Amino acid sequence: MVTLRKIASIVKGKLIGAPGQLIHGVSDIRNGVPETITFLLNPKHTKLVEQTAASAVIVNDSTLLAGKNGIVVESPRLAMSKVLKIFESKDHQPIGIHPTAIVYESVKIGEKVCIGAMAMIGKNAQIGKGSIIHNSVTIGENVVLGDNVEIHAQVAVFSNVKIGNNVIIDMGTIVGSSGFGYETADGIHHKIPQIGSVVIADNVEIGANCTIDRGTITDTVIGEGTKIDNLVQVAHNVKIGKGCLIAAQTGISGSVDIGDFCIFAGQVGVNNGIKIGARSIFIGQTGVTKSLLGGKIYSGMPVREVGETNQRDAAYLKIKSLEKRLKNIEEQFAK
Amino acid sequence: MVTLRKIASIVKGKLIGAPGQLIHGVSDIRNGVPETITFLLNPKHTKLVEQTAASAVIVNDSTLLAGKNGIVVESPRLAMSKVLKIFESKDHQPIGIHPTAIVYESVKIGEKVCIGAMAMIGKNAQIGKGSIIHNSVTIGENVVLGDNVEIHAQVAVFSNVKIGNNVIIDMGTIVGSSGFGYETADGIHHKIPQIGSVVIADNVEIGANCTIDRGTITDTVIGEGTKIDNLVQVAHNVKIGKGCLIAAQTGISGSVDIGDFCIFAGQVGVNNGIKIGARSIFIGQTGVTKSLLGGKIYSGMPVREVGETNQRDAAYLKIKSLEKRLKNIEEQFAK
Amino acid sequence: MVTLRKIASIVKGKLIGAPGQLIHGVSDIRNGVPETITFLLNPKHTKLVEQTAASAVIVNDSTLLAGKNGIVVESPRLAMSKVLKIFESKDHQPIGIHPTAIVYESVKIGEKVCIGAMAMIGKNAQIGKGSIIHNSVTIGENVVLGDNVEIHAQVAVFSNVKIGNNVIIDMGTIVGSSGFGYETADGIHHKIPQIGSVVIADNVEIGANCTIDRGTITDTVIGEGTKIDNLVQVAHNVKIGKGCLIAAQTGISGSVDIGDFCIFAGQVGVNNGIKIGARSIFIGQTGVTKSLLGGKIYSGMPVREVGETNQRDAAYLKIKSLEKRLKNIEEQFAK
Repeated sequence: MVTLRKIASIVKGKLIGAPGQLIHGVSDIRNGVPETITFLLNPKHTKLVEQTAASAVIVNDSTLLAGKNGIVVESPRLAMSKVLKIFESKDHQPIGIHPTAIVYESVKIGEKVCIGAMAMIGKNAQIGKGSIIHNSVTIGENVVLGDNVEIHAQVAVFSNVKIGNNVIIDMGTIVGSSGFGYETADGIHHKIPQIGSVVIADNVEIGANCTIDRGTITDTVIGEGTKIDNLVQVAHNVKIGKGCLIAAQTGISGSVDIGDFCIFAGQVGVNNGIKIGARSIFIGQTGVTKSLLGGKIYSGMPVREVGETNQRDAAYLKIKSLEKRLKNIEEQFAK
Repeated sequence: MVTLRKIASIVKGKLIGAPGQLIHGVSDIRNGVPETITFLLNPKHTKLVEQTAASAVIVNDSTLLAGKNGIVVESPRLAMSKVLKIFESKDHQPIGIHPTAIVYESVKIGEKVCIGAMAMIGKNAQIGKGSIIHNSVTIGENVVLGDNVEIHAQVAVFSNVKIGNNVIIDMGTIVGSSGFGYETADGIHHKIPQIGSVVIADNVEIGANCTIDRGTITDTVIGEGTKIDNLVQVAHNVKIGKGCLIAAQTGISGSVDIGDFCIFAGQVGVNNGIKIGARSIFIGQTGVTKSLLGGKIYSGMPVREVGETNQRDAAYLKIKSLEKRLKNIEEQFAK
Repeated sequence: MVTLRKIASIVKGKLIGAPGQLIHGVSDIRNGVPETITFLLNPKHTKLVEQTAASAVIVNDSTLLAGKNGIVVESPRLAMSKVLKIFESKDHQPIGIHPTAIVYESVKIGEKVCIGAMAMIGKNAQIGKGSIIHNSVTIGENVVLGDNVEIHAQVAVFSNVKIGNNVIIDMGTIVGSSGFGYETADGIHHKIPQIGSVVIADNVEIGANCTIDRGTITDTVIGEGTKIDNLVQVAHNVKIGKGCLIAAQTGISGSVDIGDFCIFAGQVGVNNGIKIGARSIFIGQTGVTKSLLGGKIYSGMPVREVGETNQRDAAYLKIKSLEKRLKNIEEQFAK
């Protein structure tokens, strides 16, 4: 339970109304609950600011708050991310090592680390201070985890992987699986051993049930601040730049090189060995068949700039008009 | 081992032939095995009713059974679902809590519950009567499971998730992963904490290695009787209606609202925030880019009614015919 | 640390330069490291053979090695697969059963088997000699594993599955999940119990977080030497031939029959019940909507031979030229 005053100070906004209003949670503006705070995120819901049963609203325009408690900020969405943090209930992992966890003597563990039940920490691994390893996690030999890392339940991290600070890996994800590399001779696919590893930079977040393959000789690399959704495949030797957003079920094939601040909507596929320039944006289900300079929005399979893909889609209507015009000519000609 | 008489009574069919015929299993009609029962599911296999080595056949037309033991029912497929149940060999989970399972004292457990080896049940969780939790499962704090729920090995369910009666969750699936929500300011993607949860209604079944994200403020909801295949992504705040069928590798983006009895073939993708009307059917790989009224069959990327997608596909032939007609005109004109 | 002479003998190549050169690892030719060996895999990097700091290079043309230590072989890629094997550092699983593993008395275990921490081996399972089961793996009742099988951490294998010799299954994969089979009557989807199993032949490799469903009555079958990447779905009753390569996020629907030596690039989807002839090759994201004779390269949704898909893609340009020609006629006609 916090006061509206406290929330205003956390989101650095201008308080309007009763500073002492108690807030014990958050609700949706379409379904506001008394003694909670809500957010105007969608202009379609402007009328709900007055109507909602929530006790306060965060808006970006003070004139909307006539008679209502609230806080005015530039970005209600950014404010929401801060307010939700107040009310987030973390799983209460006690600091220390659960008696059922298996931790080799050679493991180096920083201060205030939590290691959950039935976790398995391999030889010579290092775990930075404040990191949380949930239950039933596998951490391979020689893995290095930075500070304030959170590894959720049932994740497996293969030997030698390096993970930076403030990284979050959600449940069920695999880091360091073997790349899909074979050399075929006489009809037999010979496995190419994958002796590289994975390097994950600071502030990276990876969703649930993803697969991040280790490199063949060098490492697979995920750049600082990149965020990855669920069920994403990152193949061996891929390099991903900084600040990328990669939505669910996207697949990045081997040795792809992705620049900074690229955005992939869901189910995008990227071919082997392609180079993607910075600030590329891909519409869902795009099939990235060739290297791209970046800085544009792309879509379609094979990939094209979105405007071109849309023109091609519209060409169907053009065929109809062409047929009409041709018929007209044919008729005139027949006279 | 059961008699044909017993099976006829279970499937509520009309027995033809020897009621005392012993049946010890099930076989495929194309590869029938003596002392088993088989099913005519495909009209192409009608001739096999007489030829199969199986000792009895379930059909929907008594005239096919000349001289053969069998059972006549309206739907042989529905009968098959009942007969297979007789011969299903369940993993023999003994009732009770395996000594290696970790179950907090505050957990409430109903009658005849099985909790497998190395399962982890968080504080204040509730498990309804007759439920089976297989080995190496993670159940978070405050999770509520209804009666007769089956949670297969290696599943992880995050704190606060609510699961109804008769729900089945297959191996490796994640329920309650964090939604993919970020607010970008000054090039930094700030995580929006996800404090909602997941509510799964009665009779829902979820396949293997799926990911079901928890909601941001409100809950992600899966409606009564909906069935989900493997590797499906359900993002935060999604609402799925009753009785839907969602095939493998389909991805539903955040805040999508899906009506009752929709069918998604495999690898369908649905954009953020879309509303899909009841009884929509989607062909495989459809890219659902906009809201739809429902009650129709849709396909293509971008999505269209299937007839329109097919016409567009056929337009290629039209181009060829237009070219021919145009050439004809050009030649006449040139004379 | 090995000598160049030793490596030349392993790859059966012709040594050029100093046989006693010590090699302690492998590096990328673009970023060569002294006392390592590297490989010329891409003709674009030919100039780097001389420039690289690596102490030896494996090439397929002796004239490139002027003054440089190296080995000449027919296929540098195949040689790489052998050299990487030398330097591969395996997780050091000690032989024997970890004290925290749960292994039923009725389990039959061959010589030199490793069973990792917190693994769970069900009743009557059999594990062939030299096999390695990593930590936190679930092996169901009656499962049969051949010799020299490696099952990585967090894999779950359901009851009755049969796995051949030299099979590798990477982390988080599920073998034997329930097929997605329902019979709908009066708006209720009745689960069709899946009482078949999965049979995996010798030398198969399966990536991370895949799902391989068990069959309904008969078995799902994966043929000898087939290699499967990450996040692949193989549905119930599928039969996959020998020597296939199936890249990430491909989905094979129920009862599909795939011939030998087929190649699936990533994110391919295959409809229910389709028959795919041997040596079919599918471009990424292909939607295989119908049975195919095989022996060709296919792409597009709906699937077509790649040449036809490309012609259709190029038809857009034809529309533009048709319009120009038509306009020309119209203008002449108007005179």
